[in-house]
Amino acid sequence: MLALARVGEIARLDVGRQARKGIPEVILAEGKDPEDVGLIARKMLEKTGSAIISRASPSHLEAVRNHLPDGGRAEYLRRSHIILVRARKGSQRMEKARGGRVGILTAGTSDISVAEEAMVIAQEMGSNVRMYQDVGVAGLHRLFQPLKELLRWDADILLVVAGREGALPTVVAGLVDIPVIGVPTSRSYGFGEKGIAALAAMLQACSLGLTVVNIDGGVGAGAVAALTANRMANLRVSTRHKHR
Amino acid sequence: MLALARVGEIARLDVGRQARKGIPEVILAEGKDPEDVGLIARKMLEKTGSAIISRASPSHLEAVRNHLPDGGRAEYLRRSHIILVRARKGSQRMEKARGGRVGILTAGTSDISVAEEAMVIAQEMGSNVRMYQDVGVAGLHRLFQPLKELLRWDADILLVVAGREGALPTVVAGLVDIPVIGVPTSRSYGFGEKGIAALAAMLQACSLGLTVVNIDGGVGAGAVAALTANRMANLRVSTRHKHR
Amino acid sequence: MLALARVGEIARLDVGRQARKGIPEVILAEGKDPEDVGLIARKMLEKTGSAIISRASPSHLEAVRNHLPDGGRAEYLRRSHIILVRARKGSQRMEKARGGRVGILTAGTSDISVAEEAMVIAQEMGSNVRMYQDVGVAGLHRLFQPLKELLRWDADILLVVAGREGALPTVVAGLVDIPVIGVPTSRSYGFGEKGIAALAAMLQACSLGLTVVNIDGGVGAGAVAALTANRMANLRVSTRHKHR
Amino acid sequence: MLALARVGEIARLDVGRQARKGIPEVILAEGKDPEDVGLIARKMLEKTGSAIISRASPSHLEAVRNHLPDGGRAEYLRRSHIILVRARKGSQRMEKARGGRVGILTAGTSDISVAEEAMVIAQEMGSNVRMYQDVGVAGLHRLFQPLKELLRWDADILLVVAGREGALPTVVAGLVDIPVIGVPTSRSYGFGEKGIAALAAMLQACSLGLTVVNIDGGVGAGAVAALTANRMANLRVSTRHKHR
Amino acid sequence: MLALARVGEIARLDVGRQARKGIPEVILAEGKDPEDVGLIARKMLEKTGSAIISRASPSHLEAVRNHLPDGGRAEYLRRSHIILVRARKGSQRMEKARGGRVGILTAGTSDISVAEEAMVIAQEMGSNVRMYQDVGVAGLHRLFQPLKELLRWDADILLVVAGREGALPTVVAGLVDIPVIGVPTSRSYGFGEKGIAALAAMLQACSLGLTVVNIDGGVGAGAVAALTANRMANLRVSTRHKHR
Amino acid sequence: MLALARVGEIARLDVGRQARKGIPEVILAEGKDPEDVGLIARKMLEKTGSAIISRASPSHLEAVRNHLPDGGRAEYLRRSHIILVRARKGSQRMEKARGGRVGILTAGTSDISVAEEAMVIAQEMGSNVRMYQDVGVAGLHRLFQPLKELLRWDADILLVVAGREGALPTVVAGLVDIPVIGVPTSRSYGFGEKGIAALAAMLQACSLGLTVVNIDGGVGAGAVAALTANRMANLRVSTRHKHR
Amino acid sequence: MLALARVGEIARLDVGRQARKGIPEVILAEGKDPEDVGLIARKMLEKTGSAIISRASPSHLEAVRNHLPDGGRAEYLRRSHIILVRARKGSQRMEKARGGRVGILTAGTSDISVAEEAMVIAQEMGSNVRMYQDVGVAGLHRLFQPLKELLRWDADILLVVAGREGALPTVVAGLVDIPVIGVPTSRSYGFGEKGIAALAAMLQACSLGLTVVNIDGGVGAGAVAALTANRMANLRVSTRHKHR
Amino acid sequence: MLALARVGEIARLDVGRQARKGIPEVILAEGKDPEDVGLIARKMLEKTGSAIISRASPSHLEAVRNHLPDGGRAEYLRRSHIILVRARKGSQRMEKARGGRVGILTAGTSDISVAEEAMVIAQEMGSNVRMYQDVGVAGLHRLFQPLKELLRWDADILLVVAGREGALPTVVAGLVDIPVIGVPTSRSYGFGEKGIAALAAMLQACSLGLTVVNIDGGVGAGAVAALTANRMANLRVSTRHKHR
Repeated sequence: MLALARVGEIARLDVGRQARKGIPEVILAEGKDPEDVGLIARKMLEKTGSAIISRASPSHLEAVRNHLPDGGRAEYLRRSHIILVRARKGSQRMEKARGGRVGILTAGTSDISVAEEAMVIAQEMGSNVRMYQDVGVAGLHRLFQPLKELLRWDADILLVVAGREGALPTVVAGLVDIPVIGVPTSRSYGFGEKGIAALAAMLQACSLGLTVVNIDGGVGAGAVAALTANRMANLRVSTRHKHR
Repeated sequence: MLALARVGEIARLDVGRQARKGIPEVILAEGKDPEDVGLIARKMLEKTGSAIISRASPSHLEAVRNHLPDGGRAEYLRRSHIILVRARKGSQRMEKARGGRVGILTAGTSDISVAEEAMVIAQEMGSNVRMYQDVGVAGLHRLFQPLKELLRWDADILLVVAGREGALPTVVAGLVDIPVIGVPTSRSYGFGEKGIAALAAMLQACSLGLTVVNIDGGVGAGAVAALTANRMANLRVSTRHKHR
Repeated sequence: MLALARVGEIARLDVGRQARKGIPEVILAEGKDPEDVGLIARKMLEKTGSAIISRASPSHLEAVRNHLPDGGRAEYLRRSHIILVRARKGSQRMEKARGGRVGILTAGTSDISVAEEAMVIAQEMGSNVRMYQDVGVAGLHRLFQPLKELLRWDADILLVVAGREGALPTVVAGLVDIPVIGVPTSRSYGFGEKGIAALAAMLQACSLGLTVVNIDGGVGAGAVAALTANRMANLRVSTRHKHR
Repeated sequence: MLALARVGEIARLDVGRQARKGIPEVILAEGKDPEDVGLIARKMLEKTGSAIISRASPSHLEAVRNHLPDGGRAEYLRRSHIILVRARKGSQRMEKARGGRVGILTAGTSDISVAEEAMVIAQEMGSNVRMYQDVGVAGLHRLFQPLKELLRWDADILLVVAGREGALPTVVAGLVDIPVIGVPTSRSYGFGEKGIAALAAMLQACSLGLTVVNIDGGVGAGAVAALTANRMANLRVSTRHKHR
Repeated sequence: MLALARVGEIARLDVGRQARKGIPEVILAEGKDPEDVGLIARKMLEKTGSAIISRASPSHLEAVRNHLPDGGRAEYLRRSHIILVRARKGSQRMEKARGGRVGILTAGTSDISVAEEAMVIAQEMGSNVRMYQDVGVAGLHRLFQPLKELLRWDADILLVVAGREGALPTVVAGLVDIPVIGVPTSRSYGFGEKGIAALAAMLQACSLGLTVVNIDGGVGAGAVAALTANRMANLRVSTRHKHR
Repeated sequence: MLALARVGEIARLDVGRQARKGIPEVILAEGKDPEDVGLIARKMLEKTGSAIISRASPSHLEAVRNHLPDGGRAEYLRRSHIILVRARKGSQRMEKARGGRVGILTAGTSDISVAEEAMVIAQEMGSNVRMYQDVGVAGLHRLFQPLKELLRWDADILLVVAGREGALPTVVAGLVDIPVIGVPTSRSYGFGEKGIAALAAMLQACSLGLTVVNIDGGVGAGAVAALTANRMANLRVSTRHKHR
Repeated sequence: MLALARVGEIARLDVGRQARKGIPEVILAEGKDPEDVGLIARKMLEKTGSAIISRASPSHLEAVRNHLPDGGRAEYLRRSHIILVRARKGSQRMEKARGGRVGILTAGTSDISVAEEAMVIAQEMGSNVRMYQDVGVAGLHRLFQPLKELLRWDADILLVVAGREGALPTVVAGLVDIPVIGVPTSRSYGFGEKGIAALAAMLQACSLGLTVVNIDGGVGAGAVAALTANRMANLRVSTRHKHR
Repeated sequence: MLALARVGEIARLDVGRQARKGIPEVILAEGKDPEDVGLIARKMLEKTGSAIISRASPSHLEAVRNHLPDGGRAEYLRRSHIILVRARKGSQRMEKARGGRVGILTAGTSDISVAEEAMVIAQEMGSNVRMYQDVGVAGLHRLFQPLKELLRWDADILLVVAGREGALPTVVAGLVDIPVIGVPTSRSYGFGEKGIAALAAMLQACSLGLTVVNIDGGVGAGAVAALTANRMANLRVSTRHKHR
């Protein structure tokens, strides 16, 4: 089950992770040489049929495209700076749990990039995602309708993305009976800038039922949300099957 | 107008401040020798007829009582640790504006001490105060009724006292059309402890109409609230008079 | 569904929270007057039949006992400083989901108090808990056996409690395919003391599948773990029922 | 009263805020896609007749101009980086209070951009503004004349803008009997850089009568100053009317 | 000139420092075993005829008294927590410069302990000291008279001691043409507590002519002030002598 | 080689660590229940014949003594707060390398406790230790003689213990050609207190040849110094043996 | 003596400062509009005959040159980024003290820019300056010769400029009997970067006789050094004169 | 032995350091003028035959090449940004210890640049280096094989390079019986960014046998590793020789 693919001397890919954990390995491009990222992506593609690259710049995209095998496609998501790469024949499908329901709420328009990052990861892991933007606490009346819709949809878990004072996850966690993950974003300035205020506020939240990921941690949030929701979906299905 | 009373070599009291600014001088006891505080309070009493001592310990209270002139009274407020001292004949009354309407909301039970500090200062400055406790955002439904009552009362300004994630002032400022002052308290632990998370959240608030005082700054919050509200009350009255 | 009980002027209990959210309201004693805590606990008991008080000192315990109604019992958990209070007739039972499986791992002996706090909350919410102590990464060989047992038990979610360098949640999340919640503790000294190093490490974790709560946040961790696990248990059961 | 305008999937404009709160919604451009800002501004213009965009770059300006309806105008304020957008027929006028008197003082020449931001917001909200620049405490003699003029004008509230050591608001609040709002700016370097020293100094101020906004928080300062001053102006006028 | 006295294995006294630098070695008692402090003080006394011990607790005083040689005296200064120890025959007199004029100003009553620490050290080094208390910027009118007196006395250097927002040194340095040393104190709370705000403000001061010592650094401030002032006094005298 | 001893449910002792790593397991008492520490120490004693307990309070000592088996001895080192426990028959001797030469220098008298902690651990691991106290950079002339003696002794490695400005390790590493480990201590106050300044200075040191441990990390410093020095001693001996 | 020159609405120049304080007003260009800096410099030139502009970029230089009156000269110092501007007829000469002796030492080559900034200011104020570069503590033997030369020259005061671990001022202050000013620079990386480690180390210095300015505070350091040294030089001269 | 070469007025090279300490002087280019770096490198080359320049930009490289003497070569290492310069006749060879065995492990692909910096320094000092990349704790199975190979090679010391949560050095130090040096890198984001989390985690490591260098401190880590390993290699050889 432990399959390691080596890329020259620079990387040891954990290509078996998807099978082992149900979470694909995401290549963090930021701070890496574009050429290296291109090589790593190609190796990944050969082994698993797909690759996800986060925090990618245009020069990463170019390098990835230069290393694409015949028939491969690289799609660039402008807002979240993710590159999705696929081999011709479609990616290795996870046999693991799929079909969880992940709801996403953002406090403001500038939190979209992080929210999209989370959405893409969750969808890649086979979860269904519904997202509502710009429902922050400065105008509470914007929140209630989207929240009601997510609960009616019977969402398994909520991701609540917020910068600035980061109050939205606390408010939401006080209103629902499903787990909520707070995702602080770095959209802020002055004291508590770079998302520190939002992170602190979410950690201090007096609502129970809330956990937190790192600032701008869209990838991590999407992965854990899908992992949780898919397990729930799986239980629904498997027990259903058992009883047929 | 500038009247200075000297207490031995240790303090220069600004006994004219009340006349000049409409705000009494508040003696911060914390970190001061009880004996010194007793001497300062007595001198204050002689010059203005009253004294307010904040963050006082029982040993400060004892020293103050030892230095009371005949007929003077020292009252100790257990929750806010304030000592109110009065000379026999009642204190020098402010000729300045009075009668403002200050509303106070606290997020949790443990914010009471700071809220009471603010209330006492505002009342000493001649403002009317209404306070509602424990209406934090973890259970939003607790907030709406008190808020409605404060608006119906036509409050001039709101003090919103909160520790932990400090979200309440942001939410309130999003709902009302009068100025709101956020008062962060040090009731918190872990990352952002000692009120840092609450302060940061209030400074980052995406609601407009909100200013902030220092952590546990009940005295400052009460003073500025009363100053503002009294000016408003004064305008109501003086223009009314003018037109009679 | 929104039931508010008022305690004098000091607290507004959210006694309907358990019905609404499946999470009981936990009274944080730290920084509150013992007398106030006693009154709040009694009111809680009258409304819901039980009360959980965290971070309680012996003087809180004494005050709670003084306000117990006839037949009520207050149990003090020495390591986690929790007081569990029950009315004579047993507490109001949650009709919500129960029976989730929560696994807890601690890195060191001094993390026990926080882990126990989490365990108690999860058990109060009706989850089953298995805990293994002192399996930190300084001696990796101690980890594998407990982890294997938790996976064989088919745990729904893992709480991993660690102070100092906080590496254990990262290592565990790299090995399992269920959600992991990192719980940093304040057991540390020097640079990164008070749990800051552990919190930062968990937020930075390069393993996916991990979320975090605040430092020493045993109550929050236990609540969200039980909420998640109970939903999973519920799906197992309800779909089973549906098909009968 | 609660009117929401949606802009594609990215923003939910609170176009009723001006009516509800007397404060217009200000669009923060920083960190947002220029195209998105253009769309949001246009929607705002259609609904309310005007839009204010803060922290705008030249590319934001260009995008806003590209989305202007016929006859619309976009004015760019070079120092404060604000874009003011108006529809042909003039903006929706606030029926709320207007005419407050807001005094602004800056400590140094480099604080102008933040001060101008505050001035523009206050003027947009219908307040009258007088501003004096470069009167910091390193040369106290520069301060007294401007201050005297503001008091003679009977200013309702003062904004005091300062970077570096941030002492000016403390000194001013010690001299006047109207509320003072300290506005720390990020003009500083070394220890306490980015305005942290100024913010801390203002929060610690031993003068009473002072509240604070976030570092570089010109928009917030202008809004709360106008809100307060307009309420005062309103009281003057309405009581006058009542007695006619 | 380099004379080292060893105290058992625990300390290497720099008894020649006074001759070499004109500054006596000050023994910091805080965090040291009382018995050890007693031994060190005795050794110091034997070698130089006097000893200065700072941040001393009553138990340090007791231990010092137990180790006093016949005829030695230990004086305890209550506010500054300094112990001055003298041998019977009077202390070894510095042959170095003496007679400088050091002015000290404190912002508030609670800064006295640090100011006294500085005063004692400067006096021990042979400087003349004049001190004025409680002249902080919240009431500027209190400052001008003391300052005028210090300038009329032709002070060589000023120590300005302040906690909270630490604005006084900046204001003073803007008004005088002699060097000013800012001494931040830890008297503060909330954001910037423990003197951090005061230190930052003094380092950021826009007045030129100001240097700073550490928070609560009375000993260091007194030493450098006396060193500077004594050199000035010395020049006055020596050139006078030279020309006789 | 991997031997685990369990103590009730609270601890999993790594009793084979000494054999595996040449470093004994040190029990950190701070923050642990005395009773628990007593149980852990006894179990350790049974398995390995000795136990080292650091940061122990008198109540830890009492509990350890209560759990001593017949003939066991517990020695308390007052300065370093270490308890050394031995079974009657002497401890399990390490077969690993011994006899390294560890030199220790302290900057000031108040750094002794940390230095002693390091010394004890290194000696327990079989290294020879020479220590010189109070040779900090404020009087450089005190440093050269001790340093010369350590080099003449042919020390394998140096531990340099310093608080305050932490300059000594940098100066020493600039003068010698053997590895230096900087050990910052928490003896400091004001800005950079609790050893943060010393730690930062050591990490920033412009001398090469220096590594660092955590603030007050005497145990860690002693262990790594002995590990390194013993390997050196071992090479001396083993190659000597090989060639006989 | 208090002369204020106004520059449009943007600046209030303190042109009398040089006469009043013996320190010229230095215009901080950083963060200011080049055009504004040009206007301010011209006004300064008209009033006093010279201007000093610090932290100037090439675009500031260009703007200053564009506003130069006939015959004016602007000199750009490449390392310290200072612009020195002179009117044709030479600058207004200070009648105040001149001729002090300021010694400057830098720890490393990268500290030159800050040291040069200090040197220029001191020279502009009429002091004599001697500077020695790159004598940091990593190679102590480089320090002694320059130090000896400065003492033989009878320097009145020393500026010691250092980044990284900032140990040099402590070491120097332990060796000399004149005042030392530590000037931390931002040349550092990792923990304690941006000069924080150097600042902290200097504030914590166990040598007495040392004060500190802000990180990269060359202007402030040069001004206070010249102020102090000039006063000393003045005393030498004036007493000499008095006795003739 | 103390040989100083001066470069104009800007630098005092410690060209004897290699002989004295066994560590070459490394020129830090960052923050230095390219021209100055070129001059310094040339002087170094003349005196010692080689030069190492770290954190060099392309413009540094160009300047170095411009100042190369005939026959000199400058090699640029792209990942670590080091310039290695050699004179024609080969560099002055260290007579000191050589031949140590240094093992390097990196947690992730983006840690390569720091690891390469360490490797180059260690090799320049005559050590043998083996490096394994991308073996972080998120996939523990990747670690064991490389570690086994390094132990079989009988490495004298290990450098473990890690960013993000920095857990790898703790895990490795728990598994081996040779000294481990943790090298935190700045590859991280959000809370604990810039390597602070990794540094804190390594300082807090509960494994003994670990020391730490500054964030991105590849040069320092390589130097101390080679110093230690070479001393070990030397002992092997010299005792071997002695016995021949």
